[in-house]
Amino acid sequence: MTVLTKPRARAGGRAARRSIRSAPNVDMLPGLTRALPTCEVMDPDQIARIDAASMDILENVGVVFRDEIALADWRRAGVKVVGERVHPDRGLVRDLIATIPADFTYHARDPQKNVRLGGPHSIFVPMTGAPYLRDLDDVRRNPTLDDLAMFHKLSHMMPALHSSAHHIVEPYDHPISQRHLRITYSSMKHSDKTFMGMTTSPRNAEDVMEMCAILFGEAFMEEHPVTTGNCNGNSPLVWDETMLGAMRAFCRRNQPVLCSPFVLGGANTPASVPATVAQLNAEALSALAYTQLIRRGCPAIYGHYLSTVSMRSGAPMAGTPEISLMNFMIGQMARFYGVPWRTSNTLGGAKTFDAQAGYESATTLSAVIHAGANYIWHSAGWNEAGMHCSVAKFVVDAEQCAMAHRMASGPYWGDFDAALAAIPDVGPGGHYLGHPHTQENFQTAFFMPDLFDNNSIEQWAADGSKETTERALIHARRLLDAYEEPTLDAGLNEALLDYIARREREIPAADALNQEY
Amino acid sequence: MTVLTKPRARAGGRAARRSIRSAPNVDMLPGLTRALPTCEVMDPDQIARIDAASMDILENVGVVFRDEIALADWRRAGVKVVGERVHPDRGLVRDLIATIPADFTYHARDPQKNVRLGGPHSIFVPMTGAPYLRDLDDVRRNPTLDDLAMFHKLSHMMPALHSSAHHIVEPYDHPISQRHLRITYSSMKHSDKTFMGMTTSPRNAEDVMEMCAILFGEAFMEEHPVTTGNCNGNSPLVWDETMLGAMRAFCRRNQPVLCSPFVLGGANTPASVPATVAQLNAEALSALAYTQLIRRGCPAIYGHYLSTVSMRSGAPMAGTPEISLMNFMIGQMARFYGVPWRTSNTLGGAKTFDAQAGYESATTLSAVIHAGANYIWHSAGWNEAGMHCSVAKFVVDAEQCAMAHRMASGPYWGDFDAALAAIPDVGPGGHYLGHPHTQENFQTAFFMPDLFDNNSIEQWAADGSKETTERALIHARRLLDAYEEPTLDAGLNEALLDYIARREREIPAADALNQEY
Repeated sequence: MTVLTKPRARAGGRAARRSIRSAPNVDMLPGLTRALPTCEVMDPDQIARIDAASMDILENVGVVFRDEIALADWRRAGVKVVGERVHPDRGLVRDLIATIPADFTYHARDPQKNVRLGGPHSIFVPMTGAPYLRDLDDVRRNPTLDDLAMFHKLSHMMPALHSSAHHIVEPYDHPISQRHLRITYSSMKHSDKTFMGMTTSPRNAEDVMEMCAILFGEAFMEEHPVTTGNCNGNSPLVWDETMLGAMRAFCRRNQPVLCSPFVLGGANTPASVPATVAQLNAEALSALAYTQLIRRGCPAIYGHYLSTVSMRSGAPMAGTPEISLMNFMIGQMARFYGVPWRTSNTLGGAKTFDAQAGYESATTLSAVIHAGANYIWHSAGWNEAGMHCSVAKFVVDAEQCAMAHRMASGPYWGDFDAALAAIPDVGPGGHYLGHPHTQENFQTAFFMPDLFDNNSIEQWAADGSKETTERALIHARRLLDAYEEPTLDAGLNEALLDYIARREREIPAADALNQEY
Repeated sequence: MTVLTKPRARAGGRAARRSIRSAPNVDMLPGLTRALPTCEVMDPDQIARIDAASMDILENVGVVFRDEIALADWRRAGVKVVGERVHPDRGLVRDLIATIPADFTYHARDPQKNVRLGGPHSIFVPMTGAPYLRDLDDVRRNPTLDDLAMFHKLSHMMPALHSSAHHIVEPYDHPISQRHLRITYSSMKHSDKTFMGMTTSPRNAEDVMEMCAILFGEAFMEEHPVTTGNCNGNSPLVWDETMLGAMRAFCRRNQPVLCSPFVLGGANTPASVPATVAQLNAEALSALAYTQLIRRGCPAIYGHYLSTVSMRSGAPMAGTPEISLMNFMIGQMARFYGVPWRTSNTLGGAKTFDAQAGYESATTLSAVIHAGANYIWHSAGWNEAGMHCSVAKFVVDAEQCAMAHRMASGPYWGDFDAALAAIPDVGPGGHYLGHPHTQENFQTAFFMPDLFDNNSIEQWAADGSKETTERALIHARRLLDAYEEPTLDAGLNEALLDYIARREREIPAADALNQEY
C-alpha cells in the first residue's frame, strides 16, 4: 500500500524495496471524498417516475409495521393505519425525511479516525454476519471470539477500512443471548476506528448504547454519531418488531440506523429493475420517515441488501448487470432525497476464493463507487453469499478498496507541468526510469498492490507458484504478527468489562442463532 | 446466456431448467449501443490542458517516424522534419484528424454480424498475440494452428464477442514468415463475425488485404471497412517502419488501423497520470494524422496499449486505479477529437486463472465501459501479462462482456407499469415467484450467468466441488462439441486456399517469432 502515502524510502535500490515489503503501511486512509462524477443512469423524469411509484405504493398499498409502538407512533402522526398496514401520504413522508442530515461526522474513539458520511463522503466497512469463516489455513469452520478478534485486528490494520464493524463472524463459542456484549467489546478494544452496533434485539441494542455511553460519554453521544446499527426490512413492505425496537434504541440516542430493505430481486420484488427499485425505495422511505417520528433530526441512512435471484436454484446472485444498474439508480434516489446511502460491496456466491469471487467482488466494488455510495458495507471478506468470511479475501478486498479509494479520488494534477517537462528531457525513444521526476514520484504516481503478483512466471515459480489465496494468507499472518492494540484508557476498559459482567449475570445463556446480513 | 434472448422454455420446472443448461445460446449479441453516461473525470479546462500539452509535444519535441516514405509524406505536407523527427503544428493536426469518420460500420462476412464503431457504439474483441495458451486441460504450452482454430470457434460461439480477431494465440507449428496467411484464413473460416488483419510486416498486411479482397470483393472494400489492423507505437514518441508500412497497406485500401502507442506508464512515460495521457495523446494524434496523409477520409481508430509499471519488478500492472483513470481521460480525449477509440480489456498479470485474474479483469472491464470505449480489445482470455491465453478465462471473460453489454444498455423500462401492478397483487409479506408477471419475465429480467456457481456449498460439493477454472473448461468443451462451422462459399474458400498456396510457395519459411500486443 506504499503508494498511498509519501514515499518512505527514496533512495531506491534493493534495500529500499525490501524495506517497503517488510513494513506494511497500516495508517488508515482518510474517509473517501469522491471526485469522480456519479453514474446517472436515470434522467430527471425517470427519477420522478420512481419517486411517484414509491409514493403511490406507500399511500395505496401501505407498509406493514409489525410493532404496536410503531403503529401508535404513526397514528399519533395522523397517518392512516389499517390493521398493521401504515399508509403515510407523500407530503408527510417528504416532510419527515427532510430533517435527516444530508451528511454527518461518524466518530471513532481515536478522533483522527473520524469519518464523514453523505454527499461525496464515503467509507468502507468490512462484511458482517458470517456463520463460517475460512481461516488462516483456508479451512472452513464455525468461528470463535478469537476469530472475531482477528478480523477486528485486520480491520484495524487495513488502510482503506474505516470501521471494525461488529460481528464480522459469529462467535460460536459464546452464548447467543450474551454474544452482542462480547462482539461490541471486541470491536471497541481491538480497533480505534468507527464500529457498528448490534441490532439483534431491542434490548441488545440498548446494551450497545450503554457501552457506547461508557466509551464516549452520554452527553457526547447526544450530539455525535458514534456507532451505526443496521435494521433490515422484510421485503416486500414489512418491518418487524425486532428491527423497529432496535431502531428506536438507536434513534432515541441520536445514533444513525441503516434502513435496509432486504431485497432478493425477482423473489420478493417484481421481475423488473425499475419496479424493484420503486418497491425498495418505498420500503426505505417508510423506515427513514419512521426514524424521524422517533426523534426529529436524528441522522439516518438509506440502505438495502440487494441481490437478484437465480431462477435455476433460487440462490441470490451478485456481480450481475442488474445489480450494478440498481445501485446506480438507488444512488440517484438517495441523492434526490438528500440522505446518506448505504449499499453492499464485494457480494458474491463463490464457495472458495477463486476467479468467480474476484470477478463478483470487483464488479460490485466498481459499481458502488460509480454509483456514489456513502456507507460501503461488506467491503471485505464476503464470500459464499455471506455464509463465510474468508481471511484471504478479507485482505485482498481491503486492498481493492484502497485502489478504489485512489481511483475515486481522481487524477492528481499537482505536478502536471513538472511531469510534462520530463518529456523533452527524455525525448523520442528514451526511457523515464532514470529521470529525476520519475525517481521523485514513482512510488506515489502509480499504485502497486501488495497482493497481486505481476512477476514473470519464472519468478513466480521460483517464489513457490503461489496463487492469490496463499499469498493473501501469508500477508494476513504477517499483518497479525505486527498488530499493536490501540491504547484504551484503563478506567474505560474496566467500566466496559464491569458492564458486560453485570449483564452476563442478568442474561440467561441461550443458544439459538441470530443472524443478520 | 439464457436471459439475453426471449425465453425458450416458459413451462418452468426441472425439465425446462435442464433444457436451459443443455443448450447454450450462441447467437451474437448486436453491437453494444451504450446507454450509460461516460465517466467524465476531466472538466473542459483539463481537456484543453491535455490537448495543449500534446500539441506542444508534437510541435516542439516532435515524433520520430523511422520510415523514409512517411518522412517524405510529412515533408510533402509542408511539415518541419528534422532528421527523423516530425514536428507537425496543431493547425495541421486538427485539420488532418477532422476527416477521420466519427463512426463507421465494420463489416462481417455475415452481414447480420456487421457492427458499428464510434460514438455510443462499442464492440468486444478477444485477446490476441499470446505465445502460450492454457489449454482445455489447463496445461500451459505453446499453441498450434488447431489451438488457434479452437479460439476462433469459441469467438464465433460466445454471444458478446463481435470478432474472431486474428492470432489469438501464436501457431507455433507453422513457419513465422507464412503464419499470417493461415491465421487470417482461420479467422475467416471458423467464424463469420468481423476479424482483424495481421500487421506484422507491410507485405503481410498486403496479403491480408488481398485475402479480404477475395472474401469481400475489391470494390466493396474500397467503400467499407472489412477488417482492422493494429499499429503499435514505440513510446515515447516513435513509430517504426514495420508499423507504418502496414498502416499504409491498410489505409490505402480504406481499411481502419488502430493507432496504438504502447505505454508502460512510468517507464516510457512520465510518472504522472495526466502527463502520461498527454504523451500518449500526442503519439496517437501523430499517427491518426498520418493516416489522413496516406488517404484522406480513411477510417482510423485512436488506440493504445496501456499499463503501469511496478517499481518492484519492472513488470506491467493492470487493474490498478491509474489505469482506470487514464481510460476515463483518454476516452474524453478521443471524444474531444471525434475519433473512435480502442482500449484494452481484461488485462492482468496473474499466472493462473485465480482470484487475482478475476479482480483485474472485472476492474478493467468496468473501467473501459464507464470510459465509453468503442473497440474493446483483449476482451477474452488474456492472462499473465498477455503471455498466455487461457481457455477457461476466455469463456468466463466473454460471459462477463455479455453482462457488461447488458449493464451498459441501461435499465429496461418497457414493462415498468406492468411490473408495478404486481406490487399490490402480492402485497406486504408475499412473494413474487408465482405472479404471472414474474413467470413471464423472470428469464429476461435478471441475467443468470452460466459460469458463476451460486448454489449452496452442499449442492456445490455434490456437484464435485468445482472451482471456476474447472467449470469453465467443461463449458468450453461443451461449446466446442456443439460448434457448427458457418458456411463459406466453396468458390471463395478455394480462392483463398489458392492464394495461400501461391504465397507459401513464394515466401521462404523462417522461424523467428514476431509478437504483437
